[in-house]
Formats: sequence, C-alpha cells, structure tokens
Amino acid sequence: MCELLGMSANVPTDLCFSFKGLRERGGNTGPHKDGWGIAFYQGKGVTTFKDAIASYQSEIAALVSNYPIKSTSVVGHVRQANRGKVALENTHPFTRELWGRYWTYAHNGQLTDYDDLPCERFTPVGTTDSERAFCFILSELAKKYPDGPRRRRDVFSVVKTLSDRLRALGVFNLLLSDGDFLFCYCTTKLHYITRRAPFSVARLSDIDVDIDFSRETTPNDVVTVIATMPLTCNEQWQSLQAGQACLFKAGECVRQW
Amino acid sequence: MCELLGMSANVPTDLCFSFKGLRERGGNTGPHKDGWGIAFYQGKGVTTFKDAIASYQSEIAALVSNYPIKSTSVVGHVRQANRGKVALENTHPFTRELWGRYWTYAHNGQLTDYDDLPCERFTPVGTTDSERAFCFILSELAKKYPDGPRRRRDVFSVVKTLSDRLRALGVFNLLLSDGDFLFCYCTTKLHYITRRAPFSVARLSDIDVDIDFSRETTPNDVVTVIATMPLTCNEQWQSLQAGQACLFKAGECVRQW
Repeated sequence: MCELLGMSANVPTDLCFSFKGLRERGGNTGPHKDGWGIAFYQGKGVTTFKDAIASYQSEIAALVSNYPIKSTSVVGHVRQANRGKVALENTHPFTRELWGRYWTYAHNGQLTDYDDLPCERFTPVGTTDSERAFCFILSELAKKYPDGPRRRRDVFSVVKTLSDRLRALGVFNLLLSDGDFLFCYCTTKLHYITRRAPFSVARLSDIDVDIDFSRETTPNDVVTVIATMPLTCNEQWQSLQAGQACLFKAGECVRQW
Repeated sequence: MCELLGMSANVPTDLCFSFKGLRERGGNTGPHKDGWGIAFYQGKGVTTFKDAIASYQSEIAALVSNYPIKSTSVVGHVRQANRGKVALENTHPFTRELWGRYWTYAHNGQLTDYDDLPCERFTPVGTTDSERAFCFILSELAKKYPDGPRRRRDVFSVVKTLSDRLRALGVFNLLLSDGDFLFCYCTTKLHYITRRAPFSVARLSDIDVDIDFSRETTPNDVVTVIATMPLTCNEQWQSLQAGQACLFKAGECVRQW
C-alpha cells in the first residue's frame, strides 16, 4: 500500500511540516520505500518532485521538507509497490492536461481486473493499476465533456461516481486536483484536518518536530491537510468513511458525498 | 529570448557540470531570469524541476546543479519572458503524454500569429507562444498517427516539417524528447558537442569550474550535450544552421536534415 498527503489552502502555504512527517513513513517509520512524489500548484502551473527511492533517503525529499514551496493545492504520495515495478514511471503523483488544465492524481490501494478499464484519450506510461485508473477517469471525463464542463465543480460528481466503480475493483483511496479543487475519496483510510484561527501548536507523530502555526499564519488563513493516517499526535483529525468523498477549495470543504 | 540545454547519452549520466554553466546564465552571466526548468528521463519516466524565478537565485536549481541525477535524455531551459507573463505555467519545459509516452519540449525564440495554430487534442495551460507551438506539434502527430506510429523514429521527420512551418512564424529553436530520442531544430542558435573516449578536461565559460571527464566516464560512454551557446571555452562545439535538425539517440546523432 501507500500513503497520501494533500493540502488545500486559501493563501499560498508551505507544507514542510506535514511533508516532514510523511517523509519518515517513506522507509523509516513506515514501509513505503518504493518512491515518493509531491506536486505543488501555483496558479494554473504545477511543479512536481519525485524519485523512485525511499523519501527517507532522498536528497530531493530533504530539500522539499526544508524549503518552503508556497502553494494552494498539493498532492503527495509515498509508495509501497504492489502493481508495477519500482520505477520513475510508476511513481505518483501522475499529471495530465485536460481542457487546458493540469490534473494531478495519487492513489493508495490496490485494484483487480483493472486491465479492462477503458482508456481512450489517455494512455498509461507505466504499469500500475493506479495510473490506469487515472487514465480511465480522465478519459471518461473527456468523453462526457468533449468541449469542457460549464462549471468545473460539476465534474467532481462524475469523479465520485467513477470512484464508486473503481472501489468495486478493490481499495481505492484517491487525491485528485486541478489546481483549484482538491477531491478526496476514501475506501479504507483517509483523514483530514482544517486549521483556522485561533491557530495552535501541532506535533508530528513520526518525528520529534512541532510547529506553532499561530506564528506562521494570518487570522484569515484556512488550510486543510489530508493524509492516509493523521500526521500529528495532539490534534483531532476527521476520518472519512468507506465510499465517502470530500471536495475542498481554498481550504474549505465545499461538498461532501 | 531564452537558452536551451539538452543531453542524450548511452549510459545514465548526470548533467551537473553543464547545468552549472546554464544556471549562471539565468540571472548572472545572462539575462534569462524569468524561470528555469529541467526534465530528466529515467526509462519511460520523467522528473522535472522548475521554478518561476532566476535559476541563479533558485535553491532548487542549486540542488540540481550539485546532486547528480543520472539520465539518458534531458531537456532544460532558462527563460527570458517575451510572450506570456512570468509564472509557473509559462515555465519550460512542457510535458504531455502521447501514445503512452511522455513528450518533453523546450523552445527558444519568439513567434508571431501563433494564436491560429490548430490545437485539437492538446490545449495550452499557459499563455506562451512556445506551449501553443508544442500543443500544435503534438496535436498534428496525434492526428497523423491516431494509433501511434509503427516506428517512433519516423515521427521526427514530421516534427522536422512542422518545425519548418513554425520557423516561418519567427524564431524557433527547439528541443523535443520522448525519452529515447532527442530532436533539435535550429533557427538562429544551437550548438552541440559529442564527448567520447579519449575524454579530457572541459572548462565552463560562465563560471570558474572544470571537470576531467576521463575520471567520470567509462571508455564506451557517448554523451552529447546541446546548448544555445557553447557552455565550455576549451572544446569545439558544432553549430547548427538555420533550418537544420538533428536527431540524437543514446548519445549519437542518428539523423540530420
């Protein structure tokens, strides 16, 4: 399996603190040593760091955990390979362009019979069930909205329905972003926390690091962090249920299914 | 304008030495301070570092110039903005998937009347002439080979023809890779050097750094580096002519037009 990390915020915010926790799970406190990646949106652009080695040992991951990259939407992943060999092309997150926007995706879980998922417009580059499911989702969206949707938000209802179909094939925990929205879908494990004023001190579970968010934020900041398992030990994270989906925008949950 | 940097090699090779030179041109020895990016292929996978600030001042660029990322095909760029604001979505290189492979592209130059270039399958995310031309090239390829080409190499003859069309719109110096092949097209300035045994010492033009390649290589290594202007001051670089294209694979020039 793998672990997911996402963020949605109403102001450009760095994710160093949370990524420090996730990074430990990539080969130190967790077994997810088969690659890692994290994508940061800035406006419509996205920059992705990824590496087919354990994040715990990666010099690039060391940079990402210490260098504050400000973003309003983030999709991250540490991998424990099941389908598909350990290789850069099988390392999440995956990004494709659709309707003039970059869509970025990371999956935690394992699917069966995924070879039959129709992928017309998008073709997997690697050999994971995850990327195949991503190409399936985007191909279905492209088919349903050949000229793009009237309201981008409506697209995520379709993604929810497609996620339900994928859940029938196994474990499908999902993060998907177009830079504005961050969609999360749970089959087994997915948690989130929305931080807003008054901010307080948070302490990581996986490494002896804490942060006083009141010193890093302004009173209007709203920041949601999504993770497979809670990353901090002194805060209350919300747990998603099987089949539950949340859509975040600018830090706020704008829809639940 | 901008500067390009590419590499094709028959064994995974790092590009730290050359990137150190290019990085200086991004805001120090050159005016290309509006962003930089570099994509490294490993097998079918690709990892890209990019940033909408001057490479000379970028901490991420500092990592890339010191941390040896081994690759057989590289596409890099430092930007001096003309079309399109300074923003991550306008920062080269650009990558799209076609036929189950990642295609990565960087452009140096400036086009006029590029808004009319037909882009059916691929849509620009940013607002540069460069990305529009990229989407045009890939859309034309997708149209010509709806089920993919029989021999991938043949595709580049079509890219050469499309590049000639783009050259009619202005300055079009191009690097394009699918991970195996690296295609280069020249309108005004593009140079390359192929290094092979016996290797010797090379000295950068832009910063006081030299390297003894005989200590870094094995006798069978073949490495071609492509750059807008020669990066070293003690080696003989080949200059491409206007309208000339070269196709590299595993370090060797396998075709010229």
